Amino acid sequence: MIFEIHSTDPGSFARAGKLQTDHGEILTPIFMPVGTAGTVKGVHQRELLDDIEAQIILGNTYHLYLRPGLDILRKAGGLHKFNGWSKPILTDSGGYQVFSLKEIRKITEEGVYFNSHIDGSKHLFTPEYVMDIQRVIGGDIIMAFDECPPYPCDYKYAEKSMHLTHRWLKRCVERIQTTEPLYGHHQSLFPIVQGSVFPDLRVQSAEYIASQEQDGNAIGGLSVGEPAEEMYKMIEVVNAILPKDKPRYLMGVGTPENILEGIALGIDMFDCVMPTRNARNGMLFTTEGIINIRNKKWEDDFTPIDPGLGGYVSTFYSKAYLKHLMKCQELLGAQIASIHNLRFYLWLVGEARKHILAGDYASWKDQAVKKLMTRL
Amino acid sequence: MIFEIHSTDPGSFARAGKLQTDHGEILTPIFMPVGTAGTVKGVHQRELLDDIEAQIILGNTYHLYLRPGLDILRKAGGLHKFNGWSKPILTDSGGYQVFSLKEIRKITEEGVYFNSHIDGSKHLFTPEYVMDIQRVIGGDIIMAFDECPPYPCDYKYAEKSMHLTHRWLKRCVERIQTTEPLYGHHQSLFPIVQGSVFPDLRVQSAEYIASQEQDGNAIGGLSVGEPAEEMYKMIEVVNAILPKDKPRYLMGVGTPENILEGIALGIDMFDCVMPTRNARNGMLFTTEGIINIRNKKWEDDFTPIDPGLGGYVSTFYSKAYLKHLMKCQELLGAQIASIHNLRFYLWLVGEARKHILAGDYASWKDQAVKKLMTRL
Repeated sequence: MIFEIHSTDPGSFARAGKLQTDHGEILTPIFMPVGTAGTVKGVHQRELLDDIEAQIILGNTYHLYLRPGLDILRKAGGLHKFNGWSKPILTDSGGYQVFSLKEIRKITEEGVYFNSHIDGSKHLFTPEYVMDIQRVIGGDIIMAFDECPPYPCDYKYAEKSMHLTHRWLKRCVERIQTTEPLYGHHQSLFPIVQGSVFPDLRVQSAEYIASQEQDGNAIGGLSVGEPAEEMYKMIEVVNAILPKDKPRYLMGVGTPENILEGIALGIDMFDCVMPTRNARNGMLFTTEGIINIRNKKWEDDFTPIDPGLGGYVSTFYSKAYLKHLMKCQELLGAQIASIHNLRFYLWLVGEARKHILAGDYASWKDQAVKKLMTRL
Repeated sequence: MIFEIHSTDPGSFARAGKLQTDHGEILTPIFMPVGTAGTVKGVHQRELLDDIEAQIILGNTYHLYLRPGLDILRKAGGLHKFNGWSKPILTDSGGYQVFSLKEIRKITEEGVYFNSHIDGSKHLFTPEYVMDIQRVIGGDIIMAFDECPPYPCDYKYAEKSMHLTHRWLKRCVERIQTTEPLYGHHQSLFPIVQGSVFPDLRVQSAEYIASQEQDGNAIGGLSVGEPAEEMYKMIEVVNAILPKDKPRYLMGVGTPENILEGIALGIDMFDCVMPTRNARNGMLFTTEGIINIRNKKWEDDFTPIDPGLGGYVSTFYSKAYLKHLMKCQELLGAQIASIHNLRFYLWLVGEARKHILAGDYASWKDQAVKKLMTRL
């Protein structure tokens, strides 16, 4: 995988670049729609391409491992062939999901024992097995198996957990180095910086992760309930250490504001369920600000959802019609809102890229955050 | 509204024609997708046009009256403007829905008192009011307010109910004759033949309905639980009386077999929730036969859903992927299956039309029914 930096912003740490994978290139900074079970909820694959202009999507290892399962994925020839998405895919390691199963998992040095949330069946994820699973899924970027500690979390636990993540990383790297991709395309392993909200742990972790010299690096364990300022501080601390010439991925973040601030701090890649999950609840991000489409004020507003954003969905359907669909819990409401919000997120990172290339990112960002986070 | 007959089949009563409305033409025989609350569930408007090739869709008066309500629909300029569907729309009269609310309605000469299934609020539908509502919705074809008796139903009740439907029809016709369309396009009223499964009542009703000399005529009260043979017999009896030069609409029917048999008996228009409702439950109609996509046998079948049908959805996605989506109750599963089944229904009536024009409809129909109703 090749990463080129085209431009850096003079007023911040923002950079515009290009990531080259065997499934095509990704212009950064980039937002990656989340396709948990091999589908971005409510969105057709052609809509991801044409309406949302997604360049890479995520798959969740935990969900794909349970359904459709490795046998089907292997027979299909990997996730790209299974779901028909021929651009890049990133898969997480399943760590975040199994740690969310609080009642039904047990962490050991070997790995994590857990019970499926679907049928209660017992499973063990070890770092090695998670690498093997991600070989079968076939993502272009695969994530190391880490422990994501909750927030708040005491220093002792965060430190212990970080060391476990580092030992697991060694096992992940070794497994990847001694196995081959199954479908002929390259898979890059991204290790994950942990350390909760403790700067010294974050420094230690970033140094360890950087020393692995992988194709790219990720920051995990943020946006788990801590104040945004804490998150930004951790990103700053970590990005001062992570190599500049490798892409940096901030996992599971966030609001449009979080993303623009993250870019200013030198992040290149983002993913979050917010645009799709909030869409299904009627919260729309628009080029004019945030709309709760369930509010009565939209019921007779027959103007398009967001003419400024362009695209079929945001210019064809009216706010009043979308409000009606949401009120009736019609599938089409979730579909429209999901496409709209994802298009907005891709537009957002595209605008950020333009302003990095133009050299005025920092000043644009402050204005954009103010406007885009306004509640209409 | 102008109806032309292009061809009649020598071996049956099937005819191929064209219905001209102010929102464009409809080639018959035609299937009309059901868009209950102003949306065909899970389907974008452009998908109705491009993937399904729908020529006319239905809206349900009962649902649209309750939500978004007449105030919003009037302000929007009618349903076409509200949901962005610029081809023809047919609205039912709400009769079928309010009679389904068994516990919460009361039938009188004046009309039907009922409680909303949403919030329990009390409403009265009279024939006049239902015409006014359909003026506000603005469908190109609007239906008379009728009583749809259940099956089975004793002769006395069926007779009484039929006479009530006839008296209500008179009031509908008078209301339509003394009011104007609200949005500048013509609205045609279709009266509805009732009479349950009693041939003499059906004859009486068909004669009365024919005597109204409206733009088209409908047959109601079928496909409510009676054997298919009873339904075909009633259609035969009624179609011998309904004028040949007017379109005939068989309401709420049915399976591919029902539709092909109905066409053979001289029906021109059909609607049914079956393709979309069954899609959401995993039942697919294909050019090779019927598939229950939830069956284990499809889990590793990576061939397209139905290459013979053509179109993005049916040729891009595999059976294995759709089975996976259905198993995970992913929105995209319902979306894919709904588009596929509706495309199939439009393909079905398109094939029927071709064979009517070719003059071999009757023999083609028998083979087609056999193949298309096979369970794969």
